[in-house]
Amino acid sequence: MKIASFTYQDRNTYGVVDGNQIVDLDSMKGALGTDLKELIANDRLLELRQIDLNELPRIDIAQVTFLPVISNPGKILCVGINYATHVRETGRDTPVFPMIFTRFADSQTAHQQAILRPSVSQKLDFEGELAVVIGKTARNVKQDEALDYVAGYSCYNDGSVRDWQKHTIQFIPGKNFPQTGGFGPWLVTSDEIQDPQSLTLTTRLNGEVMQHTDTSDMIFDVRKLIEYCTTFTELAPGDVIVTGTTGGVGAFRDPAVWMKPGDIVEIEISSIGILRNTIADEE
Amino acid sequence: MKIASFTYQDRNTYGVVDGNQIVDLDSMKGALGTDLKELIANDRLLELRQIDLNELPRIDIAQVTFLPVISNPGKILCVGINYATHVRETGRDTPVFPMIFTRFADSQTAHQQAILRPSVSQKLDFEGELAVVIGKTARNVKQDEALDYVAGYSCYNDGSVRDWQKHTIQFIPGKNFPQTGGFGPWLVTSDEIQDPQSLTLTTRLNGEVMQHTDTSDMIFDVRKLIEYCTTFTELAPGDVIVTGTTGGVGAFRDPAVWMKPGDIVEIEISSIGILRNTIADEE
Repeated sequence: MKIASFTYQDRNTYGVVDGNQIVDLDSMKGALGTDLKELIANDRLLELRQIDLNELPRIDIAQVTFLPVISNPGKILCVGINYATHVRETGRDTPVFPMIFTRFADSQTAHQQAILRPSVSQKLDFEGELAVVIGKTARNVKQDEALDYVAGYSCYNDGSVRDWQKHTIQFIPGKNFPQTGGFGPWLVTSDEIQDPQSLTLTTRLNGEVMQHTDTSDMIFDVRKLIEYCTTFTELAPGDVIVTGTTGGVGAFRDPAVWMKPGDIVEIEISSIGILRNTIADEE
Repeated sequence: MKIASFTYQDRNTYGVVDGNQIVDLDSMKGALGTDLKELIANDRLLELRQIDLNELPRIDIAQVTFLPVISNPGKILCVGINYATHVRETGRDTPVFPMIFTRFADSQTAHQQAILRPSVSQKLDFEGELAVVIGKTARNVKQDEALDYVAGYSCYNDGSVRDWQKHTIQFIPGKNFPQTGGFGPWLVTSDEIQDPQSLTLTTRLNGEVMQHTDTSDMIFDVRKLIEYCTTFTELAPGDVIVTGTTGGVGAFRDPAVWMKPGDIVEIEISSIGILRNTIADEE
């Protein structure tokens, strides 16, 4: 089941994606939750399968304005250099532990919305990644049971302002400019993705393939990432783990490739869909 | 004016500290805000001076249970190695830009509450720091006007789990274990601290001075930190910048000093007060 967060006729709502239509769940918010995060927290995700979607209004998908899958995650944990190809291009050592940094919720943007190039830098880069949305409160979770804590998956473009990322060894400034992290197009519930390590991930810039990998190449798989992260912090429904990017980012190309206004960047993950963003200059 | 957040008779409230008493502002929450963060966001901080505190109930300060000054900041930005003495002991280069990492709100603890030593590590260290609480929405603020955006100041113990901090080059895991960051005892409003670079900061462990500095020794002062941080992210009322620690942390002593259950750690800053925490093992 695919669930999208979106705005339609000035209402923030969410619904089930069915081909070129979205079944609007706005009328059921009282029972389910005011947004997708609350629906997950209320443990109503699987109940959606019991609802007769034919009884509910449908909206042409071209008419909605997408929101980030989760607009307001309490925690967004990102993983650095989690694919061997990206380790090689960065020249860093293969990590012994997952490399964790964070994004703030207001650094996100939605499917079909702009990713913003900041006024202070032109070194805006893409990073195609698999996003894991947490389904229930998780602390000290062991990897064997970790996937039980996943609500679903989505695509993420961990847009990076490379010079600000490298001002010091801490990545935070380059990863938190407003509207640089694409999150969408929708959540695919975990019952439809039995194995998050069997997906194909492709990043295209203006149609050209820039990154291509299988998620089986992750150094730390989704199970291990959940175990590691929940050892030092408690995760809550709607929290997001962005699982790291593979080789091919713009910064390490020769010559370097930076995203510029008018560019179209796409992250496609099999069984999920395509997250598509245009690039625009920050006002 | 000193304003504390606390629990009293099962109510979360806040009030003005007056010697050994706190003037409880609970009855004025409707007008001022439900908590200190909302009071700041409502721009009611200076109005407190107009209130006749003699008309309001007073509580013996020994009877309250303190809360973190701001329990739920939207953003907590911490600064690494911002004093020359700490740069030297870490062996790192003097930074050209502020080194920024983040804490989640649930990693905080309050004055007189426990700082928790995690079950997975015994390498729990102290870091005495000046905390800056943001007073109004701030983006692209220039350093000359930066102090206009400060609601006030407090003490912070940026408690660090050193082995987890050093798993990779990103500090996040070692800085986000639950209840490791002490924040208190209260907010001192910015009108009482004209120059945040003229304060004396002392860290004591079981009464012994471990760190001692003048805030004039910061590499990047409060003005510059606000300018830098608001270039890459928008700050909101109640957000916190934790401005970095000075030399003398436990990790670089010979032999290393780790905090253990029963220890008492104090961060004292002139014109603010003393943040005192005991150490306890995580359950």
